Amino acid sequence: MRLLRIGAAGAEKPAALVGDGSCIDLSDVVDDFDEAFFGSGGLERIRPIVAERIERGSTQVLDGTRIGAPIARPHQILCIGLNYRDHAAETGQAVPEEPILFTKSPNTLIGPYDDVRIPRGSTKPDWEVELGIVIGRRTSYLDSVGEARDAIAGFVVVNDVSERAFQIERGGQWSKGKSAETFNPAGPWLVTPDEVADVLALDMWLDVNGVRRQTGSTSTMVFDPYFLVHYLSQFLVLEPGDLINTGTPPGVGMGFTPPIWLQPGDVMELGIEGLGRQRQNVIGPR
Amino acid sequence: MRLLRIGAAGAEKPAALVGDGSCIDLSDVVDDFDEAFFGSGGLERIRPIVAERIERGSTQVLDGTRIGAPIARPHQILCIGLNYRDHAAETGQAVPEEPILFTKSPNTLIGPYDDVRIPRGSTKPDWEVELGIVIGRRTSYLDSVGEARDAIAGFVVVNDVSERAFQIERGGQWSKGKSAETFNPAGPWLVTPDEVADVLALDMWLDVNGVRRQTGSTSTMVFDPYFLVHYLSQFLVLEPGDLINTGTPPGVGMGFTPPIWLQPGDVMELGIEGLGRQRQNVIGPR
Repeated sequence: MRLLRIGAAGAEKPAALVGDGSCIDLSDVVDDFDEAFFGSGGLERIRPIVAERIERGSTQVLDGTRIGAPIARPHQILCIGLNYRDHAAETGQAVPEEPILFTKSPNTLIGPYDDVRIPRGSTKPDWEVELGIVIGRRTSYLDSVGEARDAIAGFVVVNDVSERAFQIERGGQWSKGKSAETFNPAGPWLVTPDEVADVLALDMWLDVNGVRRQTGSTSTMVFDPYFLVHYLSQFLVLEPGDLINTGTPPGVGMGFTPPIWLQPGDVMELGIEGLGRQRQNVIGPR
Repeated sequence: MRLLRIGAAGAEKPAALVGDGSCIDLSDVVDDFDEAFFGSGGLERIRPIVAERIERGSTQVLDGTRIGAPIARPHQILCIGLNYRDHAAETGQAVPEEPILFTKSPNTLIGPYDDVRIPRGSTKPDWEVELGIVIGRRTSYLDSVGEARDAIAGFVVVNDVSERAFQIERGGQWSKGKSAETFNPAGPWLVTPDEVADVLALDMWLDVNGVRRQTGSTSTMVFDPYFLVHYLSQFLVLEPGDLINTGTPPGVGMGFTPPIWLQPGDVMELGIEGLGRQRQNVIGPR
């Protein structure tokens, strides 16, 4: 299934994608794609409903409808740092021996086509296309990496927008440069694992103003999604609907010489093979 | 007001403290002390109700009733590192030039007398008595430190339980050592600012097995609560009900020579002048 949330920000309704241009409404059977939904077996509950409605052809055209993030604001957004070998190299840092964990404020989550706002005082706003993992059940102390498969509800494209001065030059811990409002576009849809051919071999890319800046593949991740879910479950309890941003491939603005920072008026376009594409206009501070 | 939540974990009911041993039930007028409550002016709405019920004497004795955290699971738990001059010194680090921000998973929140569980693989579990700030309204880009007063719903005692090996030796970012389940006892009550004589001069302490380990005062904070709320509002959006742990005074286990780590069977007792006291039994891993 490809699940999405459509409608005005803060009032999105749950739906499932049929083709590129249409979807079926699920708001009569699902309150939201949130912790309660994932934690109560919601995915399996709606699977036959989605199939039946597609069969019946009760679809609506998406044209012009706003698409929000495909999940409600999660309990937590966890992020993995320096998780692509080439990206670690471009930032001048060693490939980590084990996953680097930092977090973003959950209220950074926005839709895939919403504006990204540069925060006040920002001098080094940057982009990061990433594979996002959505957790499907309460998960703690997994016994094996293999068990992580059952803990994953699906995958999603995210843009882990970052302010490098806030992240690196303002006190050392990274969360400070990751948590400004609008800093986590996600979507357009949540793709369940059965519809992803091989999550360990997905091409990914990001353009700024039509110029290709990031090119990569999940095949060059240092720690793959299953390793990460198993690993994180040893340190904290993952809740249903939690989002994990798994790191970015080479080509972030910080990695260029001289660095390239986002400006108001810029357009970011990004995508991951099989998971869809995003487009954000960059706007100035409030 | 002194607000608390009583009853079984996950089914707490909102109440207000009358004296040391009794409270008034508020569950007929408040769903929970959560984001919706604080964000809709809930504190001011219940103030006359609390006064009227105290007047009427409709109290219930607390004796034996479990007390949970005084707020529902928040949108985020933000923490400030090295925010007491003497504590920075005992850990061998410089007093920070500006606040160090890190986070804890919100599902670490537990009641003030609940057990603290040492996580699997832990070798260096440690304690931290802290002043917690609960945010009272959606807060972004405050113009002045003075405006922070209106953004604060109240203050609470927290124990920012930490696993130092996870925090420092496992990848560099601190969240990994702060987010194990049960790692954020809070309470026993949320004290509204009008009932705190001077939040910048509160004595605080923590005992392990009856031995005084931490002694301090909020008067030695590097960055005070109003500075912190104003500061954080420049980097992220604070939601109503968010919790900020403002750092710990000297005397953590890591600061002793040799270091002292928590063990199953230990008892932590801690408190802050005017805000109440906590007591947790330390138990072994699941």
